[in-house]
Amino acid sequence: MLIVHNPLQASHAGRHEMFRGRLVPCHETPERFEQVMAELARRPVGPMRTPLPGHEAADDARLARIHDAAYLAFLAGAWDEWLALDAANAALDILPSVWPNHGLRRDVSPLNFSARVGLYGFDAGTPITAGSWSAARAGAACAMDAARAVAAGQVRAALALTRPPGHHAGPDFFGGYCFLNNAALAAQTLRDAGAARVAVLDIDYHHGNGTQTIFEARSDVLTVSLHGDPRTEYPFYLGHADERGTGAGLGCNLNLPLPAGTGFETWSDALQTALAAVRAFAADALVVPLGVDTWEGDPISRFRLRSDDYLRIGAALGALGLPTVYTLEGGYAAAQMGVNVVNVLAGHLDQAGGGA
Amino acid sequence: MLIVHNPLQASHAGRHEMFRGRLVPCHETPERFEQVMAELARRPVGPMRTPLPGHEAADDARLARIHDAAYLAFLAGAWDEWLALDAANAALDILPSVWPNHGLRRDVSPLNFSARVGLYGFDAGTPITAGSWSAARAGAACAMDAARAVAAGQVRAALALTRPPGHHAGPDFFGGYCFLNNAALAAQTLRDAGAARVAVLDIDYHHGNGTQTIFEARSDVLTVSLHGDPRTEYPFYLGHADERGTGAGLGCNLNLPLPAGTGFETWSDALQTALAAVRAFAADALVVPLGVDTWEGDPISRFRLRSDDYLRIGAALGALGLPTVYTLEGGYAAAQMGVNVVNVLAGHLDQAGGGA
Repeated sequence: MLIVHNPLQASHAGRHEMFRGRLVPCHETPERFEQVMAELARRPVGPMRTPLPGHEAADDARLARIHDAAYLAFLAGAWDEWLALDAANAALDILPSVWPNHGLRRDVSPLNFSARVGLYGFDAGTPITAGSWSAARAGAACAMDAARAVAAGQVRAALALTRPPGHHAGPDFFGGYCFLNNAALAAQTLRDAGAARVAVLDIDYHHGNGTQTIFEARSDVLTVSLHGDPRTEYPFYLGHADERGTGAGLGCNLNLPLPAGTGFETWSDALQTALAAVRAFAADALVVPLGVDTWEGDPISRFRLRSDDYLRIGAALGALGLPTVYTLEGGYAAAQMGVNVVNVLAGHLDQAGGGA
Repeated sequence: MLIVHNPLQASHAGRHEMFRGRLVPCHETPERFEQVMAELARRPVGPMRTPLPGHEAADDARLARIHDAAYLAFLAGAWDEWLALDAANAALDILPSVWPNHGLRRDVSPLNFSARVGLYGFDAGTPITAGSWSAARAGAACAMDAARAVAAGQVRAALALTRPPGHHAGPDFFGGYCFLNNAALAAQTLRDAGAARVAVLDIDYHHGNGTQTIFEARSDVLTVSLHGDPRTEYPFYLGHADERGTGAGLGCNLNLPLPAGTGFETWSDALQTALAAVRAFAADALVVPLGVDTWEGDPISRFRLRSDDYLRIGAALGALGLPTVYTLEGGYAAAQMGVNVVNVLAGHLDQAGGGA
């Protein structure tokens, strides 16, 4: 199991998010990454590296395989624009103030900075900070580097320790603590390296709305997600069971919403359904957006998985026998994150026969 | 000139709004109303009253002529839902945390309260408070009462002293400090009372996106708006010159965006264009969403009209010779609001020959 980690992750550290109507300290913190790294130091699972040097320019071009150019340009320039408005803005993160709802137009080119933020953001929980672009881009580079290593047969499985996470980010929108869709970029990298069919199996507590939106009209990428029922859980407006894909992608999206309070037995049944869909799709490679906010102690989520359960989850995923890329998504009980994430990896390796 | 004022307006007093990325004290305050009332005491323009008793139930039914029932139910119940979540919420206003952007669905029925807020709100500048519904409903009653008085020929012109304002509120959305579209409700009341064709001439600094959206597909109501160019000014995503109405309403919307910094001479030229459109439409009655945030000292707007200019504006509007309902919209230099608003009314009366 190769671990690709992101040396710039700490440069994304939002101060506040609007959460259930309150401005509170951010749940998505650099400590989450550090706890996983610390557990990997205690329980190594394989080689570790940062993205291979020399790939940066190529990776920037690859971002545009998934994300719109205007959106990438916005993210790249947002902080400088914000500071140019007022030097005092350095003390504030960027959050949307206004956004184009169903009664308003998106086919406009506002010059106002707040209006441009609102074109792209779908929540007030995802502050853009001085280091957000650097961190997101480096995280995306991790995901693509991990996918290249798996595609080239250097390793059978890899974890991209991506922070900020990615699965809520769409072709041209950010939200849910996500800016670039690391899992989608990994899946596209696998496709571009020769895998004819790629499955994305999202096991974060929250529906991976960005990933679904990116691939919903495509038949070469299956997207499956187990998550809290969006009738009550974020992101609310996508992730329902009736969403099966569109156009050529019809039948290539499977949502398995589960009620708040779900424990491992029920969750595991849904996982079997998801695994069967991946097998039926005859995927050549697998991407797993890995959130451990399904843990019973997570502060903002409501499933009841226990730490040992993650060993079994990893084993079930490893038993698919597919080249696999994990991307790090949610999980907000930072102190327990390392154990839960590394349990998945250890379970995967045990089942897949060990070794990298 | 009849003045219909809203005794409950003070019960809507938001604490904070997100403005250009910062949480700041609300610009839209009860003091705005009080300053207009004080100036009317100094310079009376006609009889004053609160909405006629006995009309409340009828008015509630009339709200549904303009606004969606689910939206009205949300507004009516929002504060109680918010308190039911947590008694400590009494100390906080309601602002959206997440909303369905172009990548997300609106055809869902979320049970989560934050998700329901996001279905309807298009900015983070419009807090819902304990008294917002009472104030908005009473304000709407003022607008409809004023329209009834004008339609019945009791007066030739009336001002509904509506607070909160209304012209940004759409069939099913709130924003821009607005919840119920008082001007649209006045126009509909005039239509329902027999006026075949009604013109709405919006002279607030900001485009009346809610009013446009409400009437854009109708040929019986002309909407015309003079406002700051939405490329740089709120609400950004509507109000552009290429929006001419849709379907049966094609040709029945006219936007006259003007650049920041516009003074009275240029503004007045645009007003002449607007007045010509109203005359060409052969309107039977006129509704004027009246904002005085076009004043040179307004803290959040960027035209350069002077207080004396409002006398001339009122005269130009009065010279149309139409039964006229004014609704109070924006204007955030509270201390100067009264003079500017009453100048419009005085100018109107002078030109229209005086008297109520």
